[in-house]
Amino acid sequence: MAMYTIPRRVQSGSATVVVSRFATSLNLRFYSTSFREERDTFGPILVPSDKLWGAQTQRSLQNFEIGGERERMPEPIIRAFGILKKCAATVNMEYGLDPTIGKAIIQAAQEVAEGKLNDHFPLVVWQTGSGTQSNMNANEVIANRAAELLGHKRGEKFVHPNDHVNRSQSSNDTFPTVMHIAAAMEINSRLIPNLKTLYNSLEAKSAEFSDIVKIGRTHTQDATPLTLGQEFSGYSTQVKYGIDRVQCTLPRIYQLAQGGTAVGTGLNTKKGFDVKIASAVAEETSLPFVTAENKFEALAAHDAFVEASGALNTVAVSLMKIANDIRLLGSGPRCGLGELILPENEPGSSIMPGKVNPTQCEALTMVCAQVMGNHVAVTVGGSNGHFELNVFKPLIANGLLHSVRLLGDASASFEKNCVRGIQANRERISKLLHESLMLVTSLNPKIGYDNAAAVAKKAHKEGCTLKEAAMKLGVLSSDEFDTLVVPEKMIGPSD
Amino acid sequence: MAMYTIPRRVQSGSATVVVSRFATSLNLRFYSTSFREERDTFGPILVPSDKLWGAQTQRSLQNFEIGGERERMPEPIIRAFGILKKCAATVNMEYGLDPTIGKAIIQAAQEVAEGKLNDHFPLVVWQTGSGTQSNMNANEVIANRAAELLGHKRGEKFVHPNDHVNRSQSSNDTFPTVMHIAAAMEINSRLIPNLKTLYNSLEAKSAEFSDIVKIGRTHTQDATPLTLGQEFSGYSTQVKYGIDRVQCTLPRIYQLAQGGTAVGTGLNTKKGFDVKIASAVAEETSLPFVTAENKFEALAAHDAFVEASGALNTVAVSLMKIANDIRLLGSGPRCGLGELILPENEPGSSIMPGKVNPTQCEALTMVCAQVMGNHVAVTVGGSNGHFELNVFKPLIANGLLHSVRLLGDASASFEKNCVRGIQANRERISKLLHESLMLVTSLNPKIGYDNAAAVAKKAHKEGCTLKEAAMKLGVLSSDEFDTLVVPEKMIGPSD
Amino acid sequence: MAMYTIPRRVQSGSATVVVSRFATSLNLRFYSTSFREERDTFGPILVPSDKLWGAQTQRSLQNFEIGGERERMPEPIIRAFGILKKCAATVNMEYGLDPTIGKAIIQAAQEVAEGKLNDHFPLVVWQTGSGTQSNMNANEVIANRAAELLGHKRGEKFVHPNDHVNRSQSSNDTFPTVMHIAAAMEINSRLIPNLKTLYNSLEAKSAEFSDIVKIGRTHTQDATPLTLGQEFSGYSTQVKYGIDRVQCTLPRIYQLAQGGTAVGTGLNTKKGFDVKIASAVAEETSLPFVTAENKFEALAAHDAFVEASGALNTVAVSLMKIANDIRLLGSGPRCGLGELILPENEPGSSIMPGKVNPTQCEALTMVCAQVMGNHVAVTVGGSNGHFELNVFKPLIANGLLHSVRLLGDASASFEKNCVRGIQANRERISKLLHESLMLVTSLNPKIGYDNAAAVAKKAHKEGCTLKEAAMKLGVLSSDEFDTLVVPEKMIGPSD
Amino acid sequence: MAMYTIPRRVQSGSATVVVSRFATSLNLRFYSTSFREERDTFGPILVPSDKLWGAQTQRSLQNFEIGGERERMPEPIIRAFGILKKCAATVNMEYGLDPTIGKAIIQAAQEVAEGKLNDHFPLVVWQTGSGTQSNMNANEVIANRAAELLGHKRGEKFVHPNDHVNRSQSSNDTFPTVMHIAAAMEINSRLIPNLKTLYNSLEAKSAEFSDIVKIGRTHTQDATPLTLGQEFSGYSTQVKYGIDRVQCTLPRIYQLAQGGTAVGTGLNTKKGFDVKIASAVAEETSLPFVTAENKFEALAAHDAFVEASGALNTVAVSLMKIANDIRLLGSGPRCGLGELILPENEPGSSIMPGKVNPTQCEALTMVCAQVMGNHVAVTVGGSNGHFELNVFKPLIANGLLHSVRLLGDASASFEKNCVRGIQANRERISKLLHESLMLVTSLNPKIGYDNAAAVAKKAHKEGCTLKEAAMKLGVLSSDEFDTLVVPEKMIGPSD
Repeated sequence: MAMYTIPRRVQSGSATVVVSRFATSLNLRFYSTSFREERDTFGPILVPSDKLWGAQTQRSLQNFEIGGERERMPEPIIRAFGILKKCAATVNMEYGLDPTIGKAIIQAAQEVAEGKLNDHFPLVVWQTGSGTQSNMNANEVIANRAAELLGHKRGEKFVHPNDHVNRSQSSNDTFPTVMHIAAAMEINSRLIPNLKTLYNSLEAKSAEFSDIVKIGRTHTQDATPLTLGQEFSGYSTQVKYGIDRVQCTLPRIYQLAQGGTAVGTGLNTKKGFDVKIASAVAEETSLPFVTAENKFEALAAHDAFVEASGALNTVAVSLMKIANDIRLLGSGPRCGLGELILPENEPGSSIMPGKVNPTQCEALTMVCAQVMGNHVAVTVGGSNGHFELNVFKPLIANGLLHSVRLLGDASASFEKNCVRGIQANRERISKLLHESLMLVTSLNPKIGYDNAAAVAKKAHKEGCTLKEAAMKLGVLSSDEFDTLVVPEKMIGPSD
Repeated sequence: MAMYTIPRRVQSGSATVVVSRFATSLNLRFYSTSFREERDTFGPILVPSDKLWGAQTQRSLQNFEIGGERERMPEPIIRAFGILKKCAATVNMEYGLDPTIGKAIIQAAQEVAEGKLNDHFPLVVWQTGSGTQSNMNANEVIANRAAELLGHKRGEKFVHPNDHVNRSQSSNDTFPTVMHIAAAMEINSRLIPNLKTLYNSLEAKSAEFSDIVKIGRTHTQDATPLTLGQEFSGYSTQVKYGIDRVQCTLPRIYQLAQGGTAVGTGLNTKKGFDVKIASAVAEETSLPFVTAENKFEALAAHDAFVEASGALNTVAVSLMKIANDIRLLGSGPRCGLGELILPENEPGSSIMPGKVNPTQCEALTMVCAQVMGNHVAVTVGGSNGHFELNVFKPLIANGLLHSVRLLGDASASFEKNCVRGIQANRERISKLLHESLMLVTSLNPKIGYDNAAAVAKKAHKEGCTLKEAAMKLGVLSSDEFDTLVVPEKMIGPSD
Repeated sequence: MAMYTIPRRVQSGSATVVVSRFATSLNLRFYSTSFREERDTFGPILVPSDKLWGAQTQRSLQNFEIGGERERMPEPIIRAFGILKKCAATVNMEYGLDPTIGKAIIQAAQEVAEGKLNDHFPLVVWQTGSGTQSNMNANEVIANRAAELLGHKRGEKFVHPNDHVNRSQSSNDTFPTVMHIAAAMEINSRLIPNLKTLYNSLEAKSAEFSDIVKIGRTHTQDATPLTLGQEFSGYSTQVKYGIDRVQCTLPRIYQLAQGGTAVGTGLNTKKGFDVKIASAVAEETSLPFVTAENKFEALAAHDAFVEASGALNTVAVSLMKIANDIRLLGSGPRCGLGELILPENEPGSSIMPGKVNPTQCEALTMVCAQVMGNHVAVTVGGSNGHFELNVFKPLIANGLLHSVRLLGDASASFEKNCVRGIQANRERISKLLHESLMLVTSLNPKIGYDNAAAVAKKAHKEGCTLKEAAMKLGVLSSDEFDTLVVPEKMIGPSD
Repeated sequence: MAMYTIPRRVQSGSATVVVSRFATSLNLRFYSTSFREERDTFGPILVPSDKLWGAQTQRSLQNFEIGGERERMPEPIIRAFGILKKCAATVNMEYGLDPTIGKAIIQAAQEVAEGKLNDHFPLVVWQTGSGTQSNMNANEVIANRAAELLGHKRGEKFVHPNDHVNRSQSSNDTFPTVMHIAAAMEINSRLIPNLKTLYNSLEAKSAEFSDIVKIGRTHTQDATPLTLGQEFSGYSTQVKYGIDRVQCTLPRIYQLAQGGTAVGTGLNTKKGFDVKIASAVAEETSLPFVTAENKFEALAAHDAFVEASGALNTVAVSLMKIANDIRLLGSGPRCGLGELILPENEPGSSIMPGKVNPTQCEALTMVCAQVMGNHVAVTVGGSNGHFELNVFKPLIANGLLHSVRLLGDASASFEKNCVRGIQANRERISKLLHESLMLVTSLNPKIGYDNAAAVAKKAHKEGCTLKEAAMKLGVLSSDEFDTLVVPEKMIGPSD
């Protein structure tokens, strides 16, 4: 029987510690009752038999009991590790890695990239600030899985996590690389398409409402008219620019740190490795990744993420404005502005028919607030790097990916469950428009400012219409009034 | 066979939509293959047979596909719903609720309070801003579970979610109430004890290091000496005040909105209901809850959460400073400051013995950055309420509870895996202290400022010790120097 | 004629540099044409003859050309230096300072405390992070002024900036001390009184409006009624709690660092100095200052400011909500909610009578946004201290004082120019209330939920009143309706 | 003698109010003792005789006593008003404005553009959220000045503020326009050049230090070597990308709202006015301004400013990192890292020669913190627009311009007073490098990992050099050691 030193933490507290750990950190139903031994330079440690991870993952699991399962490293990071390790094996084979092992790594890494091994990535965001433990988690899982594929047992290191899977790599360059891969993929696959759908939907509404003249509002007060279509064109323009803003940040997201190894110098890699691996990742993902022009910057700072987070923050600002307008324009049904009719998706109340709570607006604005908060977290993390390595990497990655996911999903939900179904309450819009006192502006050229003002003041004071006031004051005829006061002519510059 | 209208979303897209929804939102292993019908005022809807929730929960699940499982309403909120619904049933029985039903509700609610029914609360944070859907989730689960306990079937509404479980309540007062219950419980059970342990550990280190005189540093530059114990006393004081700061906010967290119902007036409750239910919750939780003095404020604003989040933000600022100092003081082993020896918890590198990465400091500082970010999210949400209801409730609740959890867990981890094991590198500390040029300050009274400055300048220029410089300049004898330059006398005011 | 070394910066670039510097940094009209020489350990430097400052101030002025005049150290800091230096001289006389010099310092410092020498404090916030240069500015100005009072010339150092004015002090303890003095004075003299006035005004409105029943709004949608007085009671409660929140932070603001000197040890002070000077400041200001229980914390961290800033952030959140409500409730005059009539303070438009732009709400909400931003700045600064000294002191001081000033002034302006003059538009409120469909709730006990719902749905569909719908459906008589539907009975719990 | 209605505020409180107002808001020395009457639609009001402003400016001055002089509208906004009004007059002459009046407006506006009339712009940022009052301030000053130029008296409105100076304009489009003009000019004239100078200086240092091999640091711990030049190349790359980031946002800043008038429709302008005025501004400023493609977006949102502020936030993050590194690398002189020698600009202490406080780093990092805070303020303001107008305009303008100014000035100061003069402490760098244990990595290929590890562990345990340890263990000869352990070969990938 193997003699081994049981690590400190297990010694004092013994197996119970490990066990109770699992009881809280993993779902009870998957609770492991058997363990195998894995080793690292600290010595042996017990690992659940049904898990592919190794010693370093297990240590992190025990040393960072922070936040529980909800706080696991985001799945896009795990998948990006799959992509990266696959590409690394491919390039490493060019530089001499045994093809048998290389191919097994590629197969195992592919499973990671497809999310099939997610359950073997138990580590939380709140670990070492370099993400080393998640890099080792990936190395260990892929090594054990590759070994199994080649007919070897877990823990025997037939495929070695460091020497084979992590070959020519350091956590210090792999983690920034997977951050960039994950962000680029999520932005391109989830955020931008959903923003585009939202943009199209707002554009369609703008066209649909192009003939509806309505009262404008500035300072929340009645102002000169515009069309509802014009109002929605402001929203769609905001979203369009938002897409531009996010895309403007991508060139720097497409730069990969891989090849910088420990401090950016590329020690322990071969010349050309950085360019080859960026190409491989580009091919694998169909995204235009390139090697970072300066690896020192790429490890020591995550300005590209702070910048991208700033673009998301701007998108959040835009969507907050749009959602706020829509819920206020849809307020009522009797005692609000009531210009828009929002889709009913669920009972607003068991008593009040017609009560539509603008719940999609609420979910979206809450998401926007969270994105603004995440942006500050990313900013604080980004500003606190020291020397050759920023060690707020998991926080920064998590913050940005959280914001991308929330904005992407919420944009889709908002589009599908709200914008698409918005109807104009034409009757209400027309009523408000024609009650508005500011239409008096049209009378200026005919009766002069002073008379026009007198009309408006009288209407306001007496609570009557402008026309009634004008008639009472006898400043112009009914026909003249009707000819002059035409809101439809007030919605653009004159010839 | 029952005729019923299939809701829009299921009509277009049919059962597959529901099914694929579950495939993504719930773990595949728990995937339901059979369904039952539940109803609300929108009509019938299919619900997984093995789940206790009802129609309104199901609608929310389908309408808010935002963020996935990680984004579920925090467990402390679910448990607080259990506590509240139990207390409400107790008080409602006083006001005439059928005791058979009341007792079944109490039993079912108790199961929710104990976390036994967590799997039946699938809704995410990003839903209606009032939290209504989570309130209905609680009502539906408790109603179905209570009915089962009484021998009835799910969905039959023998115990009614609204009329019985939600009696005398509105989402508008229950959700703020569970926010306050959850926050108070988490702060008291998780955050404050862990901060106290950290405080005690820092105090113990301060005592342990009370005789170690070391160089002080201001502007990151060498300054006059202090003891390492004094330095740690600054840290422990920060944590002590942090506990005070959090506790200062509790009086307003202990105020419960319950009894305000829809807009704060208490419509549909009986006089005294608010006081009774606050008492019941206080008794159930052993925390000094009281009814809010003004229910309008309690529904329309969540300033108490913004305030508490501000206290957490301050704690994060304190811990960021402490963790930064500790990692810098522990930097090295050869090329840093090297005054502290931090515990080794995992391999820092497979090559460099003595390389200890201050990973606990890193996890903690990342948590602090997230807490600062969450604080902004909570602030933005708190400032955006309108009229009688703030509809950023789930965001605000989630933000605060996330920060409480992260700070509590990270404080414990940092204490256990770092602070407790910190050792002083006495040799290094002594070496740096005695090399420091600012000890020359002690010579001023004896040889005058000009001579003292000359000594220091010579030592700096020639890279020698102060004593060597003083000897060379012949301004005082070796014995005189040794008598005067005693760092141990420079660590406090003189008599 | 005196031979002196012209400092480096003046050597290369000559006198023009100094001159052009003044041309931009000081108002041209006060531009100095004559200079005198002042000296510090770097040598001599030219200083404008008509200014009291000395060499170190002049160097800072030249080395930190950041932001221009607007960015000068806030006046409350300058005044607090006057108070502190006066108190220090008083206590130093007890410890042996020559009374002639001591009294002259007291007189000069008093002038600083009264703001009479503000023009002699030209330094900006963006200087050394310890505030050393502003401390030296105070020392130099007071020394020169005191010397003048005693019949000596500026620059001769008859009263010495360091040996006399700064005696027993270090910038490292004086700057935190003046931060606390300034904050406590500003909070007590400017912020709290203005918040109290605002509170009283909101309370008065709450009482004035106590009989006005109006429609409630949740999710921005029509809800059950409440009184306008109840609505305003929510606002006044928010402000009341805001005052509490700010006051809760004062105990830690009242702790003074003075006596800690360079690193917190109190080197170069006498035992008891710290307690005496805190007493002197307390007496001078009539505020309960005490010496900080831990001087290491008091120099190395500014958590007390982060905490106080958090309280201001909460106040900003409250005021943002109140101001938003008021402008939305006052929106119109024809096409908004129109329930409140806000005072007209200036022409909203030259055309539209009745257009009142809620400009006071706008100024206040902008202030609130700035306070939230300053809070993040203070948080970032607070979290970035190192070792024995936080060197973001001027930023932190400036951020908090800026927020205090803006909130205090804007609260006063909002109260005086808006809240005080708000009138209820009783007619409009009544009209909206009686149109509201949710009054149908009152019918439930009499005709049952299903019939009540039918009434409401019919009214909504046909755009008629509830009463009309009820009549058409024949579910109850006109008298019965009028007896049952009484909003005034819906504004509280039942007996 | 003229009979006129004294405005309300002056009625109750009388002339003293006006007078005391001036005593606080304006410098006492410029205090006006004579007044003239100006009028607007609210009636007449007294204005200081020596000021060019009119009634609406005066009302704002009295109604918004918030923050005092420091809070005046930023000068670049005032100057941009000069540019805009000049261009508007030019274009208006094409559309029929009397050339005599037009030319006088152009001349007066030019004086505003040159900053000559700054004293006539007393209004603070905290006014109406549309900036209307500052637009009227500009109109009034230019009208009175133009009238004077034509030989007419102030207040007579020979040149009319609205009809002539503000012709075809609304505050709602002029204020966003001057925001964009001011931001574009400040970014191009102040920020980008100073960032470029900083970039060049860092690049020069990178080249200067290209042969200095030094210890790398990750996690603040010793790591593999790199050159000091490589380290600085990371900094220069950050600044270079920062410039790119800011420039990426300019296309949307170059879009001008002018021509949208009140709500974005362009009511009261002629077709083509918007294009012509953008061209005129472009010509006047030599910047590529164009008319905004969607005026509704341009008035209702300020996403372009939120975006630009996000770029500044990223620059702040970069500079915070750089300044932190530089102060830590320059820490010492004896007890810190001591690798860099920073320029001495002022006495760090009167006692300790060699004590250089990194004051430029401190000023810069404080600026960075403020920029992060301003970004949150701008974000909050940007997200809170309603309907056709965002009314946080002055806050947003002020926040961005403040950040631009501070970052521009601080970058210049940091470059001139710090970076340019940084020297490497080659002796210290070399000493640390050769003491470092991680050089053992080079031995792996020769003696194997296990032996190499044994060498390193022995050196660490015994506090000796790697070579000494290797000799003692007898694993290789002195010559072999010297051949293998060559840090200079560890600073890049291998062939």
